[in-house]
Amino acid sequence: MAGDEPPPLSDSDPHQHQTLKPPSPLNQKISAQKRGEDAANEAMDKGGGSSESDSEEGGESGGIWAQIKYEALQDAEAEPALASYLYSTVLVHPTLERSLAFHLGNKLSSPLLLPSLLYDLFLGALSASSTLRAAARADLRAVRLRDPACRSFNHCLLNYKGFLACQAHRAAHRLWSQGRHSLALALSSRVSEVFAVDIHPAARIGLAILFDHATSVVIGETAVVGDHVSILHHVTLGGTGLEKGERHPKIGDGVLIGAGATVLGNVSVGAGAKIGAGSVVLTDVPPRTTAVGNPAKVVRGRDGAASRLNDVPGESMDHTSFISDWSDYVI
Amino acid sequence: MAGDEPPPLSDSDPHQHQTLKPPSPLNQKISAQKRGEDAANEAMDKGGGSSESDSEEGGESGGIWAQIKYEALQDAEAEPALASYLYSTVLVHPTLERSLAFHLGNKLSSPLLLPSLLYDLFLGALSASSTLRAAARADLRAVRLRDPACRSFNHCLLNYKGFLACQAHRAAHRLWSQGRHSLALALSSRVSEVFAVDIHPAARIGLAILFDHATSVVIGETAVVGDHVSILHHVTLGGTGLEKGERHPKIGDGVLIGAGATVLGNVSVGAGAKIGAGSVVLTDVPPRTTAVGNPAKVVRGRDGAASRLNDVPGESMDHTSFISDWSDYVI
Amino acid sequence: MAGDEPPPLSDSDPHQHQTLKPPSPLNQKISAQKRGEDAANEAMDKGGGSSESDSEEGGESGGIWAQIKYEALQDAEAEPALASYLYSTVLVHPTLERSLAFHLGNKLSSPLLLPSLLYDLFLGALSASSTLRAAARADLRAVRLRDPACRSFNHCLLNYKGFLACQAHRAAHRLWSQGRHSLALALSSRVSEVFAVDIHPAARIGLAILFDHATSVVIGETAVVGDHVSILHHVTLGGTGLEKGERHPKIGDGVLIGAGATVLGNVSVGAGAKIGAGSVVLTDVPPRTTAVGNPAKVVRGRDGAASRLNDVPGESMDHTSFISDWSDYVI
Repeated sequence: MAGDEPPPLSDSDPHQHQTLKPPSPLNQKISAQKRGEDAANEAMDKGGGSSESDSEEGGESGGIWAQIKYEALQDAEAEPALASYLYSTVLVHPTLERSLAFHLGNKLSSPLLLPSLLYDLFLGALSASSTLRAAARADLRAVRLRDPACRSFNHCLLNYKGFLACQAHRAAHRLWSQGRHSLALALSSRVSEVFAVDIHPAARIGLAILFDHATSVVIGETAVVGDHVSILHHVTLGGTGLEKGERHPKIGDGVLIGAGATVLGNVSVGAGAKIGAGSVVLTDVPPRTTAVGNPAKVVRGRDGAASRLNDVPGESMDHTSFISDWSDYVI
Repeated sequence: MAGDEPPPLSDSDPHQHQTLKPPSPLNQKISAQKRGEDAANEAMDKGGGSSESDSEEGGESGGIWAQIKYEALQDAEAEPALASYLYSTVLVHPTLERSLAFHLGNKLSSPLLLPSLLYDLFLGALSASSTLRAAARADLRAVRLRDPACRSFNHCLLNYKGFLACQAHRAAHRLWSQGRHSLALALSSRVSEVFAVDIHPAARIGLAILFDHATSVVIGETAVVGDHVSILHHVTLGGTGLEKGERHPKIGDGVLIGAGATVLGNVSVGAGAKIGAGSVVLTDVPPRTTAVGNPAKVVRGRDGAASRLNDVPGESMDHTSFISDWSDYVI
Repeated sequence: MAGDEPPPLSDSDPHQHQTLKPPSPLNQKISAQKRGEDAANEAMDKGGGSSESDSEEGGESGGIWAQIKYEALQDAEAEPALASYLYSTVLVHPTLERSLAFHLGNKLSSPLLLPSLLYDLFLGALSASSTLRAAARADLRAVRLRDPACRSFNHCLLNYKGFLACQAHRAAHRLWSQGRHSLALALSSRVSEVFAVDIHPAARIGLAILFDHATSVVIGETAVVGDHVSILHHVTLGGTGLEKGERHPKIGDGVLIGAGATVLGNVSVGAGAKIGAGSVVLTDVPPRTTAVGNPAKVVRGRDGAASRLNDVPGESMDHTSFISDWSDYVI
């Protein structure tokens, strides 16, 4: 594959290998995350053209890419069986963008969709869009912070099919927005086969998203997902029938959707709301409330008022504390 | 693969490429669908042997295959990155049967199950059975008509893993009926791995079926699915235990089964019934009624009578209008 | 691959091919199973080091491996299209361990994780651990006895992705226990992609386990599953949030968990309990009771007392007989 690779688009530090440093503490990561996401949101707000640039971020120092290389080198030293895999997937690449494009290209390729074609597609999208670059970093940080089973950024980059499916979707969505529908659909179809994550390329997905486990996630054409959202496996954001227009859910910022939840129709799940595992949601859910059950109802306190959440469920990942409010939950 | 290909079994128009025409309007498609399905049902009713013929349908003019080639050519011209893929998967083939056999053979192959072996298997089944040929066309039309996200027949043929899994199942079911159990099971096992659609090869599936999204669908050995049925992803038609006999659901014509629904046991879901998303169905559902919830109950009006559906849910794809009848649904 | 193969670690009968015999009756299998599982449990109880040996079980006579070879030979004779596949996957191998390592290595390989590397890993784990060898046999017997759709041990070995995912997990868990975390996670990530079965390598899984259909199963890091458990597809044993410690379910011996059930948090599902399909379980479930619904409640008789199960649900696989006790289940 190396032979297919175009010359680097940006200055990358040739001494990067030598200058790898141990990770900075997690709280520095968190403030870095806030900065990164603010910048990405800003870029998104500016809209398409003006926020695009033609560089990768190989020159970043002390950022997430240096951390990933450090982690991969540690793993390669500790586990010789993985060394060759880690070198060709991570360590040989000058930038996160090239590593990600290489990894996605390999995973999504088929006998008739060559890895080199897909590599060029993904690298092209990442090189042209600062939004995609920022989103990849914000998603890596979201996974690392919110999933206690995630041991390192490198672990997420290599092994989280939810993360990989989301990055592939972002590239497919860009193609869709450029009117390249058949290519976008071919990509999303491969993602559905390889990762069992089925996101229509027209769906709009925000930044700092965690798709945890991710198997069987289905997100329809007119769905919108805000920022800082966490979505577990088996979740459906589905449509309601034959009509062509807006027919899928709109998920606000900071929402948490539990495993196996099904949200159907052009309904709104308000910012900071939480959908319990296995719920079936067919109407709007107010912001900062918890909806559970089949059909889903808002959890209410003993005074009958909807219980209000004070945290950001998409980040605090608290799946079950509502049980104490769920007055008829006894087993 | 071309070298493996036996000579065409039927006259195909050598000028087909030159004579491709823009699509006829959708309403012509619909009447074509009715004719096609009637013919297929007729063929099915005649039973195995008498309905089989040894030809493909390459000579059909103005049919779905000409339409698919037209769409693939349009896509190849608009998207050079896909041209080679579209040529080898669609445009180079004289018939829908060869294109489908080639596509399935590639997708389901493994290092030890070669694409050429699978190509021969699928083409053999399609060439020998007019039922399989009619079913592929009826399914293509069902997807195109019922899924507003389906942009073209070509899109369905190439990208819908539910459609592809269903065609592979039809071939596996034919092998099963011929007593070739180990081969049928090997095929269905590959379908479960590649498409995450697990249909036992003994299950009987009707015509004009939409498996929408399709991830995680599980259909057991003694299940029967009628015609004009639509089944969403995560749906289970499952068994009840250790007994060997009839132990899976029988789904009537025109039924719609929503995402994540689980139907267990040798129960009957009557023609024209609708199963809401996430429902757990353990007993019979009367025809033309709607069952929702866990455990599922029939939706009733304020007078206590079961609400009767007047449309064909499997075709109208109306997933949520029952909410107005669902008297205790408030969020 | 044969060239990569280390010399046999144990005496295997060079005349095994000639001495294949028809299967012994199933009731002999059952007592063999009991003996096999008792030995395996004993090995497990002794703990890690002392229960490990460096031999395969190629020399077993009349055991499950001879049975598998007999079945594969029958299939190869009856179905020439599969002969080459059956030879290279089963018949050419002197032991079950080599066949399984070869099969898993092929299925889980990728362009950057070569089949030979994975073969060595799996064979190494199986050769070193008598627990893994006993577990593979106990799982084969569990599938054969509990799934009426399973026609032969060979069918299970070749086609059941739940069985294969479970064996791969057992090897990954061994690597995890040895501190080889990055390799264990890389393996489990491939299992999640290839089989859509996502089991954290730290999760502890007992013996004689049936993962039926298996698509979309998710089992978290601190989950524990006892012996003689049957788990259907779409089942989640999930966590509850950000905390790092014990946060996943503990499933007792003999439990049956129905399709689509979600069990969340550090809760206990008592030995011999049954979880109905589609249930959402958020609190402890007492032993020998049945929990159903969303949220799940224990099924009680008309006297209000919890109905007690007298069989072992994980083995009797009775998914629906509780309906008669479920007083408000009417459709």
